[in-house]
Amino acid sequence: MKAKTKNISIVLYKPKYAGNIGSVARAAKNMGISKIVVVGTADYDREAMEQRSTHLAADVLDQIQYFESIEETLGGFNYIVGTTARLGKARGPFVSPRAAAQKIADLSQKNKIALLFGPEDTGLANDQLRLCHSVVTIPTSSEFTSLNLSQAVMILCYEIFIASSAAGVPAEATPKLALSSETEGMYQQIKDLLGKIGFLNPENPEYWMLDLRRFFSRSGLLSREVKILRGICRQLEWYARHKNT
Amino acid sequence: MKAKTKNISIVLYKPKYAGNIGSVARAAKNMGISKIVVVGTADYDREAMEQRSTHLAADVLDQIQYFESIEETLGGFNYIVGTTARLGKARGPFVSPRAAAQKIADLSQKNKIALLFGPEDTGLANDQLRLCHSVVTIPTSSEFTSLNLSQAVMILCYEIFIASSAAGVPAEATPKLALSSETEGMYQQIKDLLGKIGFLNPENPEYWMLDLRRFFSRSGLLSREVKILRGICRQLEWYARHKNT
Repeated sequence: MKAKTKNISIVLYKPKYAGNIGSVARAAKNMGISKIVVVGTADYDREAMEQRSTHLAADVLDQIQYFESIEETLGGFNYIVGTTARLGKARGPFVSPRAAAQKIADLSQKNKIALLFGPEDTGLANDQLRLCHSVVTIPTSSEFTSLNLSQAVMILCYEIFIASSAAGVPAEATPKLALSSETEGMYQQIKDLLGKIGFLNPENPEYWMLDLRRFFSRSGLLSREVKILRGICRQLEWYARHKNT
Repeated sequence: MKAKTKNISIVLYKPKYAGNIGSVARAAKNMGISKIVVVGTADYDREAMEQRSTHLAADVLDQIQYFESIEETLGGFNYIVGTTARLGKARGPFVSPRAAAQKIADLSQKNKIALLFGPEDTGLANDQLRLCHSVVTIPTSSEFTSLNLSQAVMILCYEIFIASSAAGVPAEATPKLALSSETEGMYQQIKDLLGKIGFLNPENPEYWMLDLRRFFSRSGLLSREVKILRGICRQLEWYARHKNT
């Protein structure tokens, strides 16, 4: 089965160097992916980008979309894959590029996929990883773990390219996942409800929410399921109000 | 089986750009390989190399060996792997990076291995490929086959690194799932609660529950997560009762 690479986008969160964006464009196009989204600013030196993309990937540069906020960027995607080299407790669970690639190749049949990469120096923070359905960590030598941004992009795109040419789940068996904007709306509603009933510590409401996000992400929620869950939340709120009067 | 990475060298045949040598040094060191040999001249701009290697891979640059002739260079190796993007008849037989990596990882236990890469513009000529025991070709999109030199090095080194460490995810990172008895207790509690608030049709309470079971099953719930979910249910029940009195 072939991945639908037109459903796959590289999302660069606040990249620092124009040259790296160019290298990313080249690497992505080598592996059949030509959609790049940059979050932050649109103020990059075109010449520095083109020097690294080569003129053969300049079309990828032309089509780059620029957004200011990450929520706005990710709202239209069904499945978001983060990447990190820092293996903090609250940041996982982590998957290998190979395992992620298989899943991405299958899901891309029916879903918009974002491959999210952080800035060169710091990588993605917990605030951005929270928005991801899975987090890829690229295995490296323990002596030198810091990958160049475009090298990290290449490894993930290469694995997706390889996974796409192997047999996978047939398209008709691939689930159509809820959009990130739908699930984020649901999380907000759950957070409100849990706050109301005193389950969440108002000082740190994200603490338990992260656990909830994690297993909902693993399960790959469908639109229908998001609607059911939101219906349950609404009914709980109604019930509480009703009992009150 | 672990590859003996000290037995593996990257051999760059007449690279054109110092910056690419720096990028190769960084990529190789990321994957535990720190021997680089350059064939041709030793006349490269150190600053351009270091800018791309970062100071963390500067030690790899310090150890680069320079040779004038390719025969002299390759004489000390037991197994030579060429790389090419051009699939001429006389140039193969070609193997994939993954297949080559497995063999390289095994052979490196007892053999000196050279991974041979050609100049950025032309790649290796038949004269150099002739010296190789096998020739790797990296799969790319047919629309844009020209890989950056350091990206090609990275893909092969990455595959060797993966092939050398048999297990991907370490045992301690493998999740321990909740017992069926734990999840069944949770489903019963959720069903009771949803019945109480009038969400489930008492005639057919299993109807919505099946949806809930499905995505909880897909997610592979942990014990900790079952406890959190049951805690939320308890709190909801408590809240309902409390509001009532």
